[in-house]
Amino acid sequence: MTTLSELADLVKGKIVGDPTMVITGVSEIQNGRESTITFLGNLKYKKYLLTTSASAVVVPEAYLLGNKPGIVHHNPQLAIAKILGEFTPELQYTSGVNETAYVDSKAKIGKNVTIGAFSVIETGVIIGDNSNIGSHTVIGQKTSIGKNCNIFSNIHIYHGTNIGDNAIIHSGTVIGSDGFGFVTDQEINYKIPQNGNVIIGNDVEIGANCAIDRGTIGDTIIEEQCKLDNHVHLAHNVRLGKGCLLTAAVTIAGSVEVGEFCIFAGHVGVAPHVKIGARSVLAAKTGVSKSLTGGKVYAGMPAREIREQHKREAVYSEVVRILKRLKKLEK
Amino acid sequence: MTTLSELADLVKGKIVGDPTMVITGVSEIQNGRESTITFLGNLKYKKYLLTTSASAVVVPEAYLLGNKPGIVHHNPQLAIAKILGEFTPELQYTSGVNETAYVDSKAKIGKNVTIGAFSVIETGVIIGDNSNIGSHTVIGQKTSIGKNCNIFSNIHIYHGTNIGDNAIIHSGTVIGSDGFGFVTDQEINYKIPQNGNVIIGNDVEIGANCAIDRGTIGDTIIEEQCKLDNHVHLAHNVRLGKGCLLTAAVTIAGSVEVGEFCIFAGHVGVAPHVKIGARSVLAAKTGVSKSLTGGKVYAGMPAREIREQHKREAVYSEVVRILKRLKKLEK
Amino acid sequence: MTTLSELADLVKGKIVGDPTMVITGVSEIQNGRESTITFLGNLKYKKYLLTTSASAVVVPEAYLLGNKPGIVHHNPQLAIAKILGEFTPELQYTSGVNETAYVDSKAKIGKNVTIGAFSVIETGVIIGDNSNIGSHTVIGQKTSIGKNCNIFSNIHIYHGTNIGDNAIIHSGTVIGSDGFGFVTDQEINYKIPQNGNVIIGNDVEIGANCAIDRGTIGDTIIEEQCKLDNHVHLAHNVRLGKGCLLTAAVTIAGSVEVGEFCIFAGHVGVAPHVKIGARSVLAAKTGVSKSLTGGKVYAGMPAREIREQHKREAVYSEVVRILKRLKKLEK
Repeated sequence: MTTLSELADLVKGKIVGDPTMVITGVSEIQNGRESTITFLGNLKYKKYLLTTSASAVVVPEAYLLGNKPGIVHHNPQLAIAKILGEFTPELQYTSGVNETAYVDSKAKIGKNVTIGAFSVIETGVIIGDNSNIGSHTVIGQKTSIGKNCNIFSNIHIYHGTNIGDNAIIHSGTVIGSDGFGFVTDQEINYKIPQNGNVIIGNDVEIGANCAIDRGTIGDTIIEEQCKLDNHVHLAHNVRLGKGCLLTAAVTIAGSVEVGEFCIFAGHVGVAPHVKIGARSVLAAKTGVSKSLTGGKVYAGMPAREIREQHKREAVYSEVVRILKRLKKLEK
Repeated sequence: MTTLSELADLVKGKIVGDPTMVITGVSEIQNGRESTITFLGNLKYKKYLLTTSASAVVVPEAYLLGNKPGIVHHNPQLAIAKILGEFTPELQYTSGVNETAYVDSKAKIGKNVTIGAFSVIETGVIIGDNSNIGSHTVIGQKTSIGKNCNIFSNIHIYHGTNIGDNAIIHSGTVIGSDGFGFVTDQEINYKIPQNGNVIIGNDVEIGANCAIDRGTIGDTIIEEQCKLDNHVHLAHNVRLGKGCLLTAAVTIAGSVEVGEFCIFAGHVGVAPHVKIGARSVLAAKTGVSKSLTGGKVYAGMPAREIREQHKREAVYSEVVRILKRLKKLEK
Repeated sequence: MTTLSELADLVKGKIVGDPTMVITGVSEIQNGRESTITFLGNLKYKKYLLTTSASAVVVPEAYLLGNKPGIVHHNPQLAIAKILGEFTPELQYTSGVNETAYVDSKAKIGKNVTIGAFSVIETGVIIGDNSNIGSHTVIGQKTSIGKNCNIFSNIHIYHGTNIGDNAIIHSGTVIGSDGFGFVTDQEINYKIPQNGNVIIGNDVEIGANCAIDRGTIGDTIIEEQCKLDNHVHLAHNVRLGKGCLLTAAVTIAGSVEVGEFCIFAGHVGVAPHVKIGARSVLAAKTGVSKSLTGGKVYAGMPAREIREQHKREAVYSEVVRILKRLKKLEK
């Protein structure tokens, strides 16, 4: 049983109303349910504050609450993220290695590690303490996985991959497959062996059904704190700087370097050998064909600063105006 | 052995020619083979009617047949769909639970259910009568699956998912993985726990290697009769109305609401929190950034009614004409 | 231990410098390491030739080496591809069928075949000599796989597929799933059974998490020497000509015919029933809605010859110039 005051303590927020109020879960403000807490993450949902059936609300400023109980926190979304953690349903997994899993005798498995049914841990693999491996996941030879990781099911991490602590990798993802390297000579496409590896820093999350290729000569690198959505493709020798957020179906070609704290919206594509400066924000479906300095919002195909892109999109209205002026002149 | 008259009965069509003619399969009209039946689904294939080697043809109007035997049906494509069902090769699967599958003692398995090699059915799972689960598929805790479903191989359906009757889910698809929810505070990307579920209505088909995320607080919902192609991504809290058709590589961001009977062509992307009205048709590669009223065809990035979009695409020709008029004036 | 002269023999190149020099690996020219060999694949990296720490360089012309040892070869990228093969780390897999794999008694397994843990080989499957199947891969009924193939892990190849020799298929890929075929009648979406197969020629490589659908009536065909990157989608009845290169996230709709030696950059989409002529090159994100004659570079949505597309992209600058001329006239 959780009270409003316990939740306020958890998020280090200021409590408004009865501290002993019992909170049983979290609901959306527009679909609020009694005895739950909700939050105002975006001022456009303010109209629901008066009518929501939720019993308490996390708000950025106390005055917004009116007579409603709640918690004041400078970042309500961050506060609710912590509160949601309190109410995440516990799943019952038997800890330890499932009897059907196949663990090579030369693999080193840490303390308190869970390995699910039929998973395959090959020779030379190292798995850190408190990590969980789902079912049907294959960890290739000499791959190392850090502490406190959650590697879900039906995943193949190829040989020689190096993953840091606290990784979350969702089902169906493939890490370390060969990059798309061919050299064509007299109508034959020869394969370029892909001898590099994949190196992933701490605190990285990768969504479902992603594909991260190993490097050709050097390595493919994902630095700490990067978060990848579903269906993201990183080609050989890509380097993602710290803290990047890549939304669904982003496709980054070979040897691209992305600076730290970049944000890519969905369906963004980047051509090979391009450098994208730190803190770039790429709008959905942007196609990057040349290097970008960074620190700005870009859009379009080819990618331009968004202001430039908007001018280009306005060209139609400009032409309509030109036609009127032309008609007048012709008269 | 199937006769033309049996097929005419099956599709409730009008027979033309010898009812006892033996039909051994279906062929394409341009690659017709003797003793097979073909169909005229599109009038641009009419030229093949006279020359096809197929022995019979399904047509929308009797006069099209000339001297050819065949079946008259108002919707030849629908008729041939039923006829193809007659000629689908039967695969020999041993019914029942494969001895290598891992079924938790607290799972409830219906009558006449097939579970393939190495599949994992976790605690609290319910599977309805006559459903088939392929090999290496993982059904997470407390997930329920309806009757007459075909869930193929290497699929992970996370805990708490609810799937209706007659579902078809192709291999490699992931349902119920965490949505892409992070809140950034002082250069740290904090994870927002994803506590919702995925709810899927009756008669839904989902292609290969799709990724359907669970809801954050509420649920991700796919209503009955929706059909999804391969590589489709639905983010957390998306709601798809009844009967939607989503073609390959469609990517729908968080909390989008799609009305009933919408059709999305390939590579369409939709930005978060947008509402798309019923019976919208989105052309390939359309990028939807604002809500659409529905009932129309949309195209472009950002999405516009297709007529508007065509005007904008014609701006180049307009500029060529303007240049001529300008030159004349300048003289 | 490998010497410079052995590598020169391997690639049939001309040696410059001490033939007994020991080479221990390959490095990138900009990150050269002592005792390794590197290559000059692109003249824009020429500046690194003088300063690289690599001990030898493969170059297209001898004069480029200056005083550096190396190998002269007309195609340095091809030469380094062969040299990388010498330095690819050997993985230790126990040959033969893993004791946990499930091989049907009516499957025919060739000589020297490796089948990994928990893989499932169904009835009537044929696997050629020297082929490797990874872990958790499912080969459906009556599928045949040629000689010297590498089929990685968590793959499902549906029944009736036919794959040639020397295929490489990366993890997570699905081959032979049902095409997206529905016919809508009175608000019901009826499934069109997909009775065709997938036929794949020799020397084909397919990346991770691809989805290749089976044909509806005829077959989906990938001819020899085609190479597909990750997340590629081929719909039912697509036909890819010999030697095509399809980069990541390419999506090809039903019944499209692609001529030989085409190159598709990332995120290209093709509408149904289109024909693309041989030796077409499609720039990233191109959307093909009508047939293309081939032999040219195309870009844009809808696809146009790239020169045409560039003119259209320049329309904004043209409008800026028009505005100036108009202003002058108005004065």
